Amino acid sequence: MVARVVEGDDPRVLQLGHRPRLAAEAREGLLVEEAAADHLEGHEATQADVPGPVDGAHAPLAEQGLEGVGAQPTGQPGDGPSGEVGGLRGLRSARRFDHRLQATPQRTAGARDSARSRGSSARSSRRCRGPAGRQSPRRTGADRAGPAAPGCYHAAVREEELVDELLAGAGDACAQASDGPGGGGVVLGPGDDAALLAPPAGHTAAWSVDDHIEGVHFRAAWCSPRALGRKAVGAALSDLAAMGARPAGALLALGVPKGFGRNEARALGLGVGEKLSAARAALLGGNVARSTAGLRVSVSVLGWVPAGRGLLRGRARTGDALFVSGTLGLARAGLLHLERGGDPREELFAPAVARLLDPEPRLALGETLAARGERVACMDLSDGLARDLPRLLAASGVAARVDAERLPGPPADLARALGETPAALAWVGGEDYELLVAGSHELEGCNDLRRIGCVVPGPPGAVRVSGEFPGARAKGFDHLAP
Amino acid sequence: MVARVVEGDDPRVLQLGHRPRLAAEAREGLLVEEAAADHLEGHEATQADVPGPVDGAHAPLAEQGLEGVGAQPTGQPGDGPSGEVGGLRGLRSARRFDHRLQATPQRTAGARDSARSRGSSARSSRRCRGPAGRQSPRRTGADRAGPAAPGCYHAAVREEELVDELLAGAGDACAQASDGPGGGGVVLGPGDDAALLAPPAGHTAAWSVDDHIEGVHFRAAWCSPRALGRKAVGAALSDLAAMGARPAGALLALGVPKGFGRNEARALGLGVGEKLSAARAALLGGNVARSTAGLRVSVSVLGWVPAGRGLLRGRARTGDALFVSGTLGLARAGLLHLERGGDPREELFAPAVARLLDPEPRLALGETLAARGERVACMDLSDGLARDLPRLLAASGVAARVDAERLPGPPADLARALGETPAALAWVGGEDYELLVAGSHELEGCNDLRRIGCVVPGPPGAVRVSGEFPGARAKGFDHLAP
Repeated sequence: MVARVVEGDDPRVLQLGHRPRLAAEAREGLLVEEAAADHLEGHEATQADVPGPVDGAHAPLAEQGLEGVGAQPTGQPGDGPSGEVGGLRGLRSARRFDHRLQATPQRTAGARDSARSRGSSARSSRRCRGPAGRQSPRRTGADRAGPAAPGCYHAAVREEELVDELLAGAGDACAQASDGPGGGGVVLGPGDDAALLAPPAGHTAAWSVDDHIEGVHFRAAWCSPRALGRKAVGAALSDLAAMGARPAGALLALGVPKGFGRNEARALGLGVGEKLSAARAALLGGNVARSTAGLRVSVSVLGWVPAGRGLLRGRARTGDALFVSGTLGLARAGLLHLERGGDPREELFAPAVARLLDPEPRLALGETLAARGERVACMDLSDGLARDLPRLLAASGVAARVDAERLPGPPADLARALGETPAALAWVGGEDYELLVAGSHELEGCNDLRRIGCVVPGPPGAVRVSGEFPGARAKGFDHLAP
Repeated sequence: MVARVVEGDDPRVLQLGHRPRLAAEAREGLLVEEAAADHLEGHEATQADVPGPVDGAHAPLAEQGLEGVGAQPTGQPGDGPSGEVGGLRGLRSARRFDHRLQATPQRTAGARDSARSRGSSARSSRRCRGPAGRQSPRRTGADRAGPAAPGCYHAAVREEELVDELLAGAGDACAQASDGPGGGGVVLGPGDDAALLAPPAGHTAAWSVDDHIEGVHFRAAWCSPRALGRKAVGAALSDLAAMGARPAGALLALGVPKGFGRNEARALGLGVGEKLSAARAALLGGNVARSTAGLRVSVSVLGWVPAGRGLLRGRARTGDALFVSGTLGLARAGLLHLERGGDPREELFAPAVARLLDPEPRLALGETLAARGERVACMDLSDGLARDLPRLLAASGVAARVDAERLPGPPADLARALGETPAALAWVGGEDYELLVAGSHELEGCNDLRRIGCVVPGPPGAVRVSGEFPGARAKGFDHLAP
């Protein structure tokens, strides 16, 4: 990106390029150089690059009398003697592959702007234009200084551009440093060492982390960056739903492979922002690192639950009714369809594919259950009832009976088209992100909770599925054999 | 691990093996089978495996009259009719590569114990022995059911074993579900959908995430799993120090490559636990996922800072003094030494290597600054002064002058041995995790803050290093050329 800034502003220094170079003279003024890519993070190449003869391929900017970038500094009115830092050309950040989600100290566009709008004071121009040209005066917090002040330029670095695109994509979901305490208690958003959140009175923080890894949790061919943003955030928020918590914010830790560029970052940010906004939560920061494999999105979420009302797994008791929300097995139906090369837009399968790629955390249900204040056990169904139900039961020290005929599976024609049965899909299907609840029989119909069985004494974690279980011999299982 | 359980208990069913197999009969009782490894998380293979003739290589356990594992169920006294779930053999979790940091529903050792100590009730035996034989009655929260109840067995799965080892390694730093609110406000530790923390009155949450990726941030050859645990947690906690926050807890999101086994998980957990304990913080959960590349540790940390006292980057003002804590450039010296093939134990370099591998977050200093309540700007130095100082300045809209001779670099003989100067190491060295502070001149000597320069008006982010800068021509920079 160094080259691009320079190209845009002064072709004479195109050779500034990407390779560190020893400075012949090092007196005053330091220019942080491009990093050697094979150095460890935090120790990437930095070298002085100063006015005076150098043994590299170019004469220093100051010597060339370059005015477009990095020439005569202009002091800010009232800030002290103008030219106090005269002669220095400021700092170019080294390329780095790990960068907190914070705005770029100096954006490329900003550096260009400064070459044109020389007159404006640095401080008044700290309002940055977003990549889409949107005025975002709030994006002026830590580490975002806006267009370059004369006498100083910063080359934007690629990862910082990715961060900018991500934040821009997230749009209004991106809580800025200058925001006051909001609904989720956000005091400070991206750009500092940590985000700050003010706890609502009488509430406890619920805090979780969830990973989505290319080739493990999703396939890039099916899951666009925007869809991945929605999916990763949706899945993470589901953990808060399962605790009865109201989401406040998220931190993203991204691992980006080669080829993940500005457009992808923008699209990912868009999906993240959409999903967070829908939950009235904010993107509060994160980390972008190079991935030596595929794309990875780690989403850490924080929410607030009324003190003492968190919905734990270990509270099921013998005699409880067992409920699930919504429809189970839809995401699996979508996966099977895609695995078989099906068209995601095919009408019969579209809802299933949508569930797979865009899970809807049951936040309202979770909050409702927490507000009721009754004893319930609750968890979200990320791995499928067959695997998650035993976890809830084991945590509670109980067993359960499930009525296969009550399992709320996908429509019969959808299941049939996949060679499955609704019950089998409902039993083994993962990634539905519905809630599993054990509690009073009176919960039937609370939001869309449906009873599927009951809690019984027995070996902790054991499940008996009563009645004929129609899925076990279905051909649909064949494809799962290695 | 399935095979290992079975081998230990009954050689007759060795062929149970690792491959899913269709059951010929599927009526009651479900056994979750080993997953096909190439399926997406949340959709791994699950199939019924029940008493009756099967087309696989083995006769079902019940038919063989096997008593060691999974035979006659025994009801718990007072829990209802014995045999209510009779005939079912319980659940084996499918192998999965993504697992929240929660204890295994049924541990391998537990399953063996159950074969020997038939008489104990399942409930009373939910106290799990840690892998080291330590009684840890608190490790009995969600999802940890202890030794298998007769009539039910669970095969431990590899990732869940890794989680167990990690938690065991973390030891007392691993806050358990049954813990009451502690110093950090921990209400609920690992094992549920989310951790719960009760905010101390009048405090704001500080929340951050930090990644350590093999080949990007560390090299496995230099950084043992235990050291990585210490380093990753130390670096993450440094963000809290930089905000003036007192750490409460951490969530770990691990990506584990092939070859990362129980010993490595235990060692990583040990390092994580040591570092968290030293900060009086708790391991509260996380996520273990398969990594298609190297090892990855993402650490999300949460702490509490008195409301309104958070140490932001954007609060430096012209006239402020500029301070750093401790010694800068030590970690870089350690890195250079290791990169040159040096012995990490070599006396001259040992402190430098220790700093590289085991950063010490300046938590006490951060808390002190927050408690003083004065206006200061603060950030931690993860990428080196040359890159981090401009960030703080840009966030504050100011510039700075730094006196190279005041930079608190490593000892001269250490620098000399590396062909460097102390000042150059101090200026460019990353990963020291010291604090950079701008504020009143009276902060000099607060903890170990030392003045290195002052804040001046000028282009936001610009730095002038006054005096001869001795490092710029040093040969030491040569090796950074690509």
